[in-house]
Amino acid sequence: MKFNLVHTESNARAGILETDHGVIETPIFMPVGTQGTVKAVEQRELIELGAQIILGNTYHLYLRPGMDVMKSMGGLHKFMNWKKTILTDSGGYQVFSLSDLRKITQDGVTFKSHLDGSSHFFTPESVVGIQRAIGSDIMMVLDECPPYPCDEEYARKSNELTVKWAKLCQKALNDSAPLYGHNQSLFGIVQGGVYQHLRQQSAEALVNLDFEGYAIGGLAVGEPAEMMYDLIEFTTQFLPKEKPRYLMGVGTPENLLESIERGIDMFDCVMPTRNGRNGMLFTRNGRINIKNAKWKTDDTSVDGDFESYTNKNFSKGYLRHLFQVNEILGLQLASIHNLSFYLWLMREARVQILENGFRKWKKEILEKLAVQI
Amino acid sequence: MKFNLVHTESNARAGILETDHGVIETPIFMPVGTQGTVKAVEQRELIELGAQIILGNTYHLYLRPGMDVMKSMGGLHKFMNWKKTILTDSGGYQVFSLSDLRKITQDGVTFKSHLDGSSHFFTPESVVGIQRAIGSDIMMVLDECPPYPCDEEYARKSNELTVKWAKLCQKALNDSAPLYGHNQSLFGIVQGGVYQHLRQQSAEALVNLDFEGYAIGGLAVGEPAEMMYDLIEFTTQFLPKEKPRYLMGVGTPENLLESIERGIDMFDCVMPTRNGRNGMLFTRNGRINIKNAKWKTDDTSVDGDFESYTNKNFSKGYLRHLFQVNEILGLQLASIHNLSFYLWLMREARVQILENGFRKWKKEILEKLAVQI
Repeated sequence: MKFNLVHTESNARAGILETDHGVIETPIFMPVGTQGTVKAVEQRELIELGAQIILGNTYHLYLRPGMDVMKSMGGLHKFMNWKKTILTDSGGYQVFSLSDLRKITQDGVTFKSHLDGSSHFFTPESVVGIQRAIGSDIMMVLDECPPYPCDEEYARKSNELTVKWAKLCQKALNDSAPLYGHNQSLFGIVQGGVYQHLRQQSAEALVNLDFEGYAIGGLAVGEPAEMMYDLIEFTTQFLPKEKPRYLMGVGTPENLLESIERGIDMFDCVMPTRNGRNGMLFTRNGRINIKNAKWKTDDTSVDGDFESYTNKNFSKGYLRHLFQVNEILGLQLASIHNLSFYLWLMREARVQILENGFRKWKKEILEKLAVQI
Repeated sequence: MKFNLVHTESNARAGILETDHGVIETPIFMPVGTQGTVKAVEQRELIELGAQIILGNTYHLYLRPGMDVMKSMGGLHKFMNWKKTILTDSGGYQVFSLSDLRKITQDGVTFKSHLDGSSHFFTPESVVGIQRAIGSDIMMVLDECPPYPCDEEYARKSNELTVKWAKLCQKALNDSAPLYGHNQSLFGIVQGGVYQHLRQQSAEALVNLDFEGYAIGGLAVGEPAEMMYDLIEFTTQFLPKEKPRYLMGVGTPENLLESIERGIDMFDCVMPTRNGRNGMLFTRNGRINIKNAKWKTDDTSVDGDFESYTNKNFSKGYLRHLFQVNEILGLQLASIHNLSFYLWLMREARVQILENGFRKWKKEILEKLAVQI
């Protein structure tokens, strides 16, 4: 993996990330392909809307189809026929948010599947092995994601564990080889809850280990947005400029732009697809609840001349009807549109950074995006 | 509307149907777009897989979005952004199969909506008006579709009513004008249950009225397939050769080919999409239940080099996974594949008719299609 910083505007960065599966222009948003598919969106449509990298969830893929199938099928790229870059999380977050009866020890975490209650054990070594089987271009270390709120003592201990596991993941990486002929990189994950000194400790310890990139985890878990922004701004100063930075599981368009301003390069979130499936559409002039009766006979597009298959071909009235009658096409078109919007937002942010106009543009567009149409 | 018979092989026909929205090569299969969308398939994908005409359901569209919206949005073509031909049924079939508490008089049928129990009244005149509002290129007369089994006396009376209504529909057509600038044709519907003399009576009465095309209704409602084939063969001899013939709501690939051999030109059925959503895939070598565990690690396509987006890009193992984890993409890919198959089958049948090879080919392919892989 290569990362080149092309230009910065204050802390905001425009870069180029390169993996064996292609070039990614940062800042970038990664559509979430939880179970080997970005929900309701075809692979060719991801290409069309400009996706350069997608995310797969280790926890879900580990349970289904399982790693025997994954290996037999030649890894996730081949399995789902996605030729561009894939990043996987480590499964840690889902273990802590989805599964029952998890038990953490120094060695790893025991959890029961949310599907059938079966018992499983993730270790730093095993999640690297699973991600080797998946064949993701970018892998994540196993981390513990402390809840919010969380007292300092818990956050401190959790931090220690996360750093310890990060080392073990790195060792497991070095002791193993890719299965499918392409290189796989490993990112560390900065934790530390809402405590600046713990964030600093976590970042410094991980930077010492020299990962190929750094994620910031444990944010957008309930804390106020301003607190999140402050923690991002604080944390990024301890991360090396020449490595990519990934803010996990975040967020709204506003979250993305504020975080870009504070030095983040990569994002993933279910928001564009999940909210889309619930009838919420992003536009350059604010959010639309497409189920609203006021769109009933509106024959105009969702967002002027915005470039998405949905927007170029269908009216608000038609989309409203599709949601009204629970048609699958509504879920498809809303997901395509919102992902198109998120990818457009990242492309636009990049252009603005390159022209040193990011901060001015951000202020202007955030005012528009905050509107509920 | 124009119809030209290009070639016949015995009773099997290859024709060209032309409406203001384009040319349709017959025999043709019409994907069912019940509520203004072919379930889980995008409009551009319908074009890609070769759909030349789709079907809309008057009953469903009348209830939602309703005709006020439909008119305000400029008709169904514009509403759903479908630029090719649309055929609508009259709503009669759904009134008899879906709604509660229907009451038939000589004037029309009162029914309660399956959605909210609200009471509605369809007359021959009103269903023409509704189809004017929808703007379908080909409209259907209001008919009563008798159940199977049904005694001769009921079938006879029902027949009389259907012929009476057909006249009234024709009058309503002539007394009204298209709303959106393109021409709309009206087909009569031959009924008569399983009684040959009633089918003959019905056909002759309708032919007397000189419709632009003739549908055969009331088949595939539970009677044995052989009985259906015999009734089709019997009925088509009373229909004018120079008009298109449409077998409503039928059916399996076998049903289609047997009916083509007996002189049918047009078909519609929910089978390819509905069965697809249930994990049943059609191939040139038989049917596949893609949910079957035996496909778990099968990295081959569903059907060799068959031309569908699904087949060209995804493996049986991946599709099986999508169904296993209830992902929407599975519904999309299965629907695309099955519709591709149905449209391919019709194109192939046409080529065979043009080369006088239909009957031989039909025998060979039906043996293959009958296989459960």
